[in-house]
Amino acid sequence: MPIVMVNIKEGRTVEQKRAMVTKMTDVLCETMNVKPASVRIIINEMKNDNFAIAGTLVCDDPSKQIKKN
Amino acid sequence: MPIVMVNIKEGRTVEQKRAMVTKMTDVLCETMNVKPASVRIIINEMKNDNFAIAGTLVCDDPSKQIKKN
Amino acid sequence: MPIVMVNIKEGRTVEQKRAMVTKMTDVLCETMNVKPASVRIIINEMKNDNFAIAGTLVCDDPSKQIKKN
Amino acid sequence: MPIVMVNIKEGRTVEQKRAMVTKMTDVLCETMNVKPASVRIIINEMKNDNFAIAGTLVCDDPSKQIKKN
Amino acid sequence: MPIVMVNIKEGRTVEQKRAMVTKMTDVLCETMNVKPASVRIIINEMKNDNFAIAGTLVCDDPSKQIKKN
Amino acid sequence: MPIVMVNIKEGRTVEQKRAMVTKMTDVLCETMNVKPASVRIIINEMKNDNFAIAGTLVCDDPSKQIKKN
Repeated sequence: MPIVMVNIKEGRTVEQKRAMVTKMTDVLCETMNVKPASVRIIINEMKNDNFAIAGTLVCDDPSKQIKKN
Repeated sequence: MPIVMVNIKEGRTVEQKRAMVTKMTDVLCETMNVKPASVRIIINEMKNDNFAIAGTLVCDDPSKQIKKN
Repeated sequence: MPIVMVNIKEGRTVEQKRAMVTKMTDVLCETMNVKPASVRIIINEMKNDNFAIAGTLVCDDPSKQIKKN
Repeated sequence: MPIVMVNIKEGRTVEQKRAMVTKMTDVLCETMNVKPASVRIIINEMKNDNFAIAGTLVCDDPSKQIKKN
Repeated sequence: MPIVMVNIKEGRTVEQKRAMVTKMTDVLCETMNVKPASVRIIINEMKNDNFAIAGTLVCDDPSKQIKKN
Repeated sequence: MPIVMVNIKEGRTVEQKRAMVTKMTDVLCETMNVKPASVRIIINEMKNDNFAIAGTLVCDDPSKQIKKN
Protein backbone atom coordinates (compact mmCIF):
# COMPACT_ATOMS: atom_id res chain seq x y z
CA MET A 1 0.00 0.00 0.00
CA PRO A 2 2.47 2.60 -1.21
CA ILE A 3 2.04 6.20 -0.07
CA VAL A 4 3.97 8.65 -2.20
CA MET A 5 4.70 12.35 -1.67
CA VAL A 6 5.88 14.23 -4.75
CA ASN A 7 7.41 17.68 -4.19
CA ILE A 8 7.39 19.81 -7.36
CA LYS A 9 7.80 23.48 -8.17
CA GLU A 10 4.64 25.47 -8.83
CA GLY A 11 3.57 26.03 -12.42
CA ARG A 12 2.48 22.63 -13.70
CA THR A 13 -0.94 22.13 -15.25
CA VAL A 14 -3.63 19.74 -14.06
CA GLU A 15 -3.03 17.76 -17.25
CA GLN A 16 0.61 17.22 -16.25
CA LYS A 17 -0.35 16.18 -12.75
CA ARG A 18 -3.06 13.84 -14.06
CA ALA A 19 -0.59 12.12 -16.42
CA MET A 20 1.98 11.85 -13.65
CA VAL A 21 -0.28 10.17 -11.07
CA THR A 22 -1.73 7.77 -13.65
CA LYS A 23 1.66 6.57 -14.86
CA MET A 24 3.29 6.59 -11.43
CA THR A 25 0.47 4.39 -10.12
CA ASP A 26 1.08 1.97 -13.00
CA VAL A 27 4.79 1.83 -12.14
CA LEU A 28 4.05 1.11 -8.48
CA CYS A 29 1.54 -1.64 -9.31
CA GLU A 30 3.94 -3.28 -11.74
CA THR A 31 7.13 -3.10 -9.66
CA MET A 32 5.72 -3.44 -6.12
CA ASN A 33 3.02 -5.97 -7.00
CA VAL A 34 0.13 -3.99 -5.51
CA LYS A 35 -3.37 -3.12 -6.70
CA PRO A 36 -4.15 0.39 -7.96
CA ALA A 37 -6.71 0.95 -5.19
CA SER A 38 -3.94 0.73 -2.59
CA VAL A 39 -1.84 3.57 -4.05
CA ARG A 40 -2.01 7.10 -2.62
CA ILE A 41 -0.08 10.02 -4.17
CA ILE A 42 0.21 13.41 -2.44
CA ILE A 43 1.52 16.32 -4.54
CA ASN A 44 3.20 19.21 -2.73
CA GLU A 45 3.51 22.26 -4.99
CA MET A 46 6.32 24.45 -3.71
CA LYS A 47 6.05 28.19 -4.25
CA ASN A 48 9.16 29.76 -5.72
CA ASP A 49 10.03 31.44 -2.43
CA ASN A 50 9.69 28.12 -0.59
CA PHE A 51 12.27 26.00 -2.41
CA ALA A 52 16.03 26.50 -2.52
CA ILE A 53 18.72 24.82 -4.61
CA ALA A 54 22.36 25.38 -3.71
CA GLY A 55 21.33 27.98 -1.14
CA THR A 56 19.33 30.12 -3.58
CA LEU A 57 15.55 30.49 -3.50
CA VAL A 58 13.93 29.67 -6.84
CA CYS A 59 12.25 33.11 -6.78
CA ASP A 60 15.73 34.64 -7.02
CA ASP A 61 16.80 32.58 -10.06
CA PRO A 62 14.45 32.88 -13.06
CA SER A 63 16.34 30.11 -14.89
CA LYS A 64 15.06 27.64 -12.26
CA GLN A 65 11.40 28.65 -12.53
CA ILE A 66 8.75 26.72 -14.43
CA LYS A 67 7.52 28.66 -17.44
CA LYS A 68 3.75 28.97 -17.62
CA ASN A 69 2.36 28.97 -21.14
CA MET B 1 7.98 14.59 22.04
CA PRO B 2 5.77 13.35 19.23
CA ILE B 3 5.63 15.32 15.99
CA VAL B 4 2.66 14.41 13.84
CA MET B 5 1.81 15.34 10.25
CA VAL B 6 -1.80 14.78 9.22
CA ASN B 7 -2.57 14.88 5.49
CA ILE B 8 -6.26 15.52 4.80
CA LYS B 9 -8.33 16.60 1.83
CA GLU B 10 -9.40 20.24 1.67
CA GLY B 11 -12.86 21.17 2.88
CA ARG B 12 -12.79 20.61 6.62
CA THR B 13 -13.82 23.39 9.01
CA VAL B 14 -11.69 24.92 11.73
CA GLU B 15 -14.05 23.29 14.23
CA GLN B 16 -13.21 19.86 12.83
CA LYS B 17 -9.48 20.58 12.91
CA ARG B 18 -9.73 21.95 16.46
CA ALA B 19 -11.51 18.82 17.67
CA MET B 20 -9.01 16.60 15.89
CA VAL B 21 -5.86 18.16 17.37
CA THR B 22 -7.36 18.27 20.86
CA LYS B 23 -8.32 14.61 20.88
CA MET B 24 -5.23 13.42 19.02
CA THR B 25 -3.04 15.16 21.60
CA ASP B 26 -4.95 13.38 24.37
CA VAL B 27 -4.36 10.03 22.64
CA LEU B 28 -0.64 10.69 22.32
CA CYS B 29 -0.28 11.76 25.95
CA GLU B 30 -2.17 8.69 27.16
CA THR B 31 -0.50 6.06 24.97
CA MET B 32 3.02 7.48 24.64
CA ASN B 33 3.26 8.82 28.19
CA VAL B 34 4.17 12.37 27.22
CA LYS B 35 3.03 15.80 28.35
CA PRO B 36 0.69 17.87 26.16
CA ALA B 37 3.29 20.63 25.79
CA SER B 38 5.59 18.26 23.94
CA VAL B 39 3.09 17.41 21.18
CA ARG B 40 3.23 19.15 17.78
CA ILE B 41 0.62 18.49 15.06
CA ILE B 42 1.05 19.77 11.49
CA ILE B 43 -1.99 19.62 9.21
CA ASN B 44 -1.42 19.44 5.46
CA GLU B 45 -4.61 20.24 3.54
CA MET B 46 -4.38 18.73 0.08
CA LYS B 47 -6.16 20.48 -2.76
CA ASN B 48 -8.31 18.20 -4.89
CA ASP B 49 -5.85 18.37 -7.79
CA ASN B 50 -2.97 17.47 -5.47
CA PHE B 51 -4.13 14.09 -4.16
CA ALA B 52 -4.67 10.88 -6.10
CA ILE B 53 -6.23 7.58 -5.08
CA ALA B 54 -5.85 4.58 -7.40
CA GLY B 55 -4.27 6.80 -10.02
CA THR B 56 -7.15 9.30 -10.15
CA LEU B 57 -6.92 12.88 -8.91
CA VAL B 58 -9.66 13.73 -6.41
CA CYS B 59 -10.67 16.69 -8.62
CA ASP B 60 -11.67 14.15 -11.29
CA ASP B 61 -13.87 12.09 -8.95
CA PRO B 62 -16.62 14.08 -7.19
CA SER B 63 -17.49 11.06 -5.02
CA LYS B 64 -14.12 11.42 -3.31
CA GLN B 65 -14.46 15.12 -2.55
CA ILE B 66 -15.37 16.56 0.85
CA LYS B 67 -18.77 18.23 0.76
CA LYS B 68 -18.75 21.74 2.14
CA ASN B 69 -21.94 22.74 3.92
CA MET C 1 -8.71 9.47 3.59
CA PRO C 2 -6.29 10.79 6.18
CA ILE C 3 -2.63 9.79 5.99
CA VAL C 4 -0.75 10.41 9.23
CA MET C 5 2.96 10.27 10.00
CA VAL C 6 3.87 10.07 13.68
CA ASN C 7 7.49 10.77 14.63
CA ILE C 8 8.39 9.36 18.05
CA LYS C 9 11.59 8.60 19.91
CA GLU C 10 12.76 4.98 19.99
CA GLY C 11 11.90 2.86 23.01
CA ARG C 12 8.13 2.39 22.87
CA THR C 13 6.62 -1.10 22.99
CA VAL C 14 4.38 -2.66 20.37
CA GLU C 15 1.57 -2.48 22.92
CA GLN C 16 1.97 1.30 23.10
CA LYS C 17 2.03 1.63 19.32
CA ARG C 18 -1.01 -0.65 18.98
CA ALA C 19 -3.00 1.44 21.46
CA MET C 20 -1.92 4.64 19.75
CA VAL C 21 -2.99 3.67 16.22
CA THR C 22 -6.30 2.24 17.42
CA LYS C 23 -7.29 5.36 19.33
CA MET C 24 -5.87 7.79 16.78
CA THR C 25 -7.91 6.09 14.05
CA ASP C 26 -11.02 6.48 16.20
CA VAL C 27 -10.30 10.20 16.62
CA LEU C 28 -9.85 10.70 12.88
CA CYS C 29 -13.08 8.84 12.05
CA GLU C 30 -15.03 10.83 14.60
CA THR C 31 -13.69 14.32 13.84
CA MET C 32 -13.03 14.04 10.09
CA ASN C 33 -16.10 11.94 9.29
CA VAL C 34 -14.21 9.14 7.51
CA LYS C 35 -14.35 5.36 7.66
CA PRO C 36 -11.63 3.39 9.48
CA ALA C 37 -10.57 1.61 6.26
CA SER C 38 -9.48 4.94 4.79
CA VAL C 39 -7.00 5.79 7.57
CA ARG C 40 -3.27 5.12 7.18
CA ILE C 41 -0.78 5.76 10.02
CA ILE C 42 3.00 5.63 9.48
CA ILE C 43 5.19 5.55 12.59
CA ASN C 44 8.75 6.87 12.31
CA GLU C 45 10.87 5.78 15.27
CA MET C 46 13.78 8.16 15.65
CA LYS C 47 17.02 6.81 17.07
CA ASN C 48 18.49 8.92 19.86
CA ASP C 49 21.28 10.19 17.62
CA ASN C 50 18.77 11.19 14.96
CA PHE C 51 16.59 13.65 16.89
CA ALA C 52 17.60 16.99 18.38
CA ILE C 53 15.77 19.35 20.71
CA ALA C 54 17.16 22.84 21.27
CA GLY C 55 20.27 21.92 19.30
CA THR C 56 21.12 18.85 21.42
CA LEU C 57 20.90 15.27 20.18
CA VAL C 58 18.76 13.08 22.44
CA CYS C 59 21.72 10.65 22.74
CA ASP C 60 23.61 13.43 24.53
CA ASP C 61 20.85 14.14 27.08
CA PRO C 62 19.74 11.07 29.09
CA SER C 63 16.86 13.05 30.61
CA LYS C 64 15.24 13.19 27.16
CA GLN C 65 15.50 9.45 26.46
CA ILE C 66 12.64 6.98 26.77
CA LYS C 67 13.24 4.55 29.62
CA LYS C 68 12.88 0.93 28.62
CA ASN C 69 11.46 -1.29 31.34
CA MET D 1 13.53 19.16 -9.71
CA PRO D 2 11.10 16.68 -8.24
CA ILE D 3 11.80 15.17 -4.83
CA VAL D 4 9.77 12.05 -4.14
CA MET D 5 9.30 10.07 -0.93
CA VAL D 6 7.87 6.57 -1.36
CA ASN D 7 6.59 4.81 1.77
CA ILE D 8 6.38 1.04 1.33
CA LYS D 9 6.07 -1.95 3.61
CA GLU D 10 9.23 -3.93 4.37
CA GLY D 11 9.94 -7.05 2.37
CA ARG D 12 10.72 -5.83 -1.16
CA THR D 13 13.94 -6.85 -2.91
CA VAL D 14 16.61 -4.52 -4.23
CA GLU D 15 15.57 -5.61 -7.72
CA GLN D 16 12.04 -4.34 -7.09
CA LYS D 17 13.31 -1.04 -5.72
CA ARG D 18 15.74 -0.65 -8.63
CA ALA D 19 12.96 -1.20 -11.18
CA MET D 20 10.69 1.21 -9.32
CA VAL D 21 13.12 4.14 -9.19
CA THR D 22 14.16 3.68 -12.81
CA LYS D 23 10.61 3.71 -14.13
CA MET D 24 9.37 6.38 -11.74
CA THR D 25 12.19 8.68 -12.84
CA ASP D 26 11.17 8.10 -16.47
CA VAL D 27 7.58 9.02 -15.63
CA LEU D 28 8.64 12.23 -13.88
CA CYS D 29 10.91 13.27 -16.76
CA GLU D 30 8.19 12.63 -19.30
CA THR D 31 5.26 14.24 -17.50
CA MET D 32 7.02 17.06 -15.63
CA ASN D 33 9.49 17.91 -18.40
CA VAL D 34 12.61 17.61 -16.25
CA LYS D 35 16.01 15.97 -16.73
CA PRO D 36 16.81 12.67 -14.98
CA ALA D 37 19.68 14.28 -13.03
CA SER D 38 17.19 16.54 -11.24
CA VAL D 39 15.09 13.70 -9.81
CA ARG D 40 15.59 12.44 -6.23
CA ILE D 41 13.65 9.46 -4.81
CA ILE D 42 13.72 8.57 -1.11
CA ILE D 43 12.34 5.16 -0.12
CA ASN D 44 11.00 4.73 3.41
CA GLU D 45 10.60 1.04 4.29
CA MET D 46 8.08 0.71 7.09
CA LYS D 47 8.47 -2.16 9.53
CA ASN D 48 5.30 -4.15 10.11
CA ASP D 49 4.87 -2.70 13.59
CA ASN D 50 5.24 0.83 12.24
CA PHE D 51 2.37 0.98 9.75
CA ALA D 52 -1.35 0.76 10.45
CA ILE D 53 -4.32 0.41 8.13
CA ALA D 54 -7.81 0.90 9.51
CA GLY D 55 -6.39 1.11 13.03
CA THR D 56 -4.56 -2.25 12.87
CA LEU D 57 -0.77 -2.61 12.79
CA VAL D 58 0.43 -4.70 9.83
CA CYS D 59 2.29 -6.98 12.28
CA ASP D 60 -1.12 -7.98 13.68
CA ASP D 61 -2.63 -8.89 10.27
CA PRO D 62 -0.60 -11.47 8.28
CA SER D 63 -2.82 -10.94 5.22
CA LYS D 64 -1.39 -7.41 4.92
CA GLN D 65 2.26 -8.46 5.10
CA ILE D 66 4.62 -8.76 2.12
CA LYS D 67 5.61 -12.38 1.53
CA LYS D 68 9.34 -12.89 1.23
CA ASN D 69 10.34 -15.62 -1.21
CA MET E 1 23.00 15.29 -1.16
CA PRO E 2 20.96 16.49 1.78
CA ILE E 3 17.26 17.17 1.31
CA VAL E 4 15.78 19.31 4.06
CA MET E 5 12.17 20.16 4.86
CA VAL E 6 11.65 23.12 7.18
CA ASN E 7 8.19 23.55 8.70
CA ILE E 8 7.59 27.10 9.94
CA LYS E 9 4.59 29.18 10.92
CA GLU E 10 3.27 31.65 8.35
CA GLY E 11 4.34 35.27 8.61
CA ARG E 12 8.03 35.29 7.74
CA THR E 13 9.39 37.58 5.02
CA VAL E 14 11.24 36.51 1.90
CA GLU E 15 14.32 38.17 3.40
CA GLN E 16 14.13 35.87 6.42
CA LYS E 17 13.69 32.80 4.24
CA ARG E 18 16.55 33.88 1.96
CA ALA E 19 18.90 34.30 4.93
CA MET E 20 17.81 30.96 6.37
CA VAL E 21 18.42 28.88 3.24
CA THR E 22 21.77 30.55 2.57
CA LYS E 23 23.11 29.91 6.06
CA MET E 24 21.56 26.47 6.40
CA THR E 25 23.20 25.41 3.12
CA ASP E 26 26.56 26.64 4.48
CA VAL E 27 26.05 24.57 7.65
CA LEU E 28 25.23 21.43 5.65
CA CYS E 29 28.25 21.86 3.34
CA GLU E 30 30.57 22.40 6.30
CA THR E 31 29.33 19.62 8.59
CA MET E 32 28.25 16.99 6.03
CA ASN E 33 31.12 17.61 3.59
CA VAL E 34 28.90 18.18 0.54
CA LYS E 35 28.86 20.75 -2.25
CA PRO E 36 26.25 23.54 -2.26
CA ALA E 37 24.78 22.33 -5.56
CA SER E 38 23.69 19.09 -3.88
CA VAL E 39 21.58 20.76 -1.18
CA ARG E 40 17.80 21.09 -1.52
CA ILE E 41 15.66 22.94 1.05
CA ILE E 42 11.85 22.80 1.02
CA ILE E 43 10.00 25.31 3.19
CA ASN E 44 6.51 24.41 4.40
CA GLU E 45 4.66 27.47 5.71
CA MET E 46 1.93 26.33 8.07
CA LYS E 47 -1.20 28.44 8.32
CA ASN E 48 -2.24 29.27 11.85
CA ASP E 49 -5.19 26.88 11.67
CA ASN E 50 -2.94 24.08 10.44
CA PHE E 51 -0.46 23.83 13.33
CA ALA E 52 -1.13 22.83 16.91
CA ILE E 53 1.06 22.96 20.01
CA ALA E 54 -0.09 21.19 23.15
CA GLY E 55 -3.44 20.46 21.52
CA THR E 56 -4.21 24.08 20.67
CA LEU E 57 -4.30 25.48 17.13
CA VAL E 58 -2.04 28.51 16.70
CA CYS E 59 -5.06 30.48 15.39
CA ASP E 60 -6.61 30.11 18.84
CA ASP E 61 -3.55 31.44 20.72
CA PRO E 62 -2.39 34.90 19.59
CA SER E 63 0.76 34.62 21.76
CA LYS E 64 1.96 31.82 19.45
CA GLN E 65 1.45 33.77 16.22
CA ILE E 66 4.20 35.47 14.22
CA LYS E 67 3.79 39.24 14.29
CA LYS E 68 3.87 40.82 10.86
CA ASN E 69 5.48 44.25 10.82
CA MET F 1 8.72 26.72 16.42
CA PRO F 2 10.53 25.28 13.45
CA ILE F 3 10.41 21.53 12.82
CA VAL F 4 13.10 20.36 10.43
CA MET F 5 13.57 16.99 8.72
CA VAL F 6 17.03 16.40 7.25
CA ASN F 7 17.41 13.48 4.83
CA ILE F 8 21.04 12.35 4.47
CA LYS F 9 22.81 9.29 3.15
CA GLU F 10 24.04 6.75 5.69
CA GLY F 11 27.67 6.88 6.79
CA ARG F 12 27.98 10.09 8.80
CA THR F 13 29.39 10.04 12.33
CA VAL F 14 27.64 11.19 15.47
CA GLU F 15 30.18 14.02 15.61
CA GLN F 16 29.02 15.24 12.21
CA LYS F 17 25.36 15.03 13.20
CA ARG F 18 26.05 16.81 16.50
CA ALA F 19 27.81 19.67 14.72
CA MET F 20 25.02 19.90 12.17
CA VAL F 21 22.13 20.16 14.63
CA THR F 22 23.99 22.66 16.81
CA LYS F 23 24.77 25.02 13.94
CA MET F 24 21.44 24.53 12.18
CA THR F 25 19.62 25.45 15.39
CA ASP F 26 21.73 28.62 15.64
CA VAL F 27 20.80 29.53 12.05
CA LEU F 28 17.09 29.02 12.73
CA CYS F 29 17.18 31.09 15.93
CA GLU F 30 19.03 33.91 14.19
CA THR F 31 17.03 34.08 10.96
CA MET F 32 13.56 33.05 12.20
CA ASN F 33 13.77 34.89 15.52
CA VAL F 34 12.92 31.88 17.68
CA LYS F 35 14.36 30.44 20.89
CA PRO F 36 16.55 27.31 20.78
CA ALA F 37 14.07 25.36 22.92
CA SER F 38 11.46 25.63 20.16
CA VAL F 39 13.60 23.97 17.48
CA ARG F 40 13.18 20.27 16.61
CA ILE F 41 15.44 18.52 14.08
CA ILE F 42 14.70 15.00 12.80
CA ILE F 43 17.48 13.22 10.89
CA ASN F 44 16.49 10.53 8.39
CA GLU F 45 19.49 8.41 7.41
CA MET F 46 18.81 6.78 4.06
CA LYS F 47 20.35 3.40 3.35
CA ASN F 48 22.15 3.19 0.02
CA ASP F 49 19.40 1.00 -1.45
CA ASN F 50 16.75 3.48 -0.35
CA PHE F 51 17.87 6.63 -2.17
CA ALA F 52 18.05 7.23 -5.91
CA ILE F 53 19.55 10.07 -7.93
CA ALA F 54 18.79 10.31 -11.63
CA GLY F 55 17.04 6.94 -11.48
CA THR F 56 20.00 5.07 -9.99
CA LEU F 57 20.08 3.68 -6.46
CA VAL F 58 23.12 4.88 -4.49
CA CYS F 59 24.02 1.21 -3.80
CA ASP F 60 24.59 0.80 -7.54
CA ASP F 61 26.95 3.82 -7.82
CA PRO F 62 29.98 3.71 -5.47
CA SER F 63 30.93 7.27 -6.44
CA LYS F 64 27.75 8.50 -4.70
CA GLN F 65 28.37 6.64 -1.45
CA ILE F 66 29.72 8.22 1.73
CA LYS F 67 33.17 6.89 2.57
CA LYS F 68 33.48 5.65 6.12
CA ASN F 69 36.89 6.22 7.68
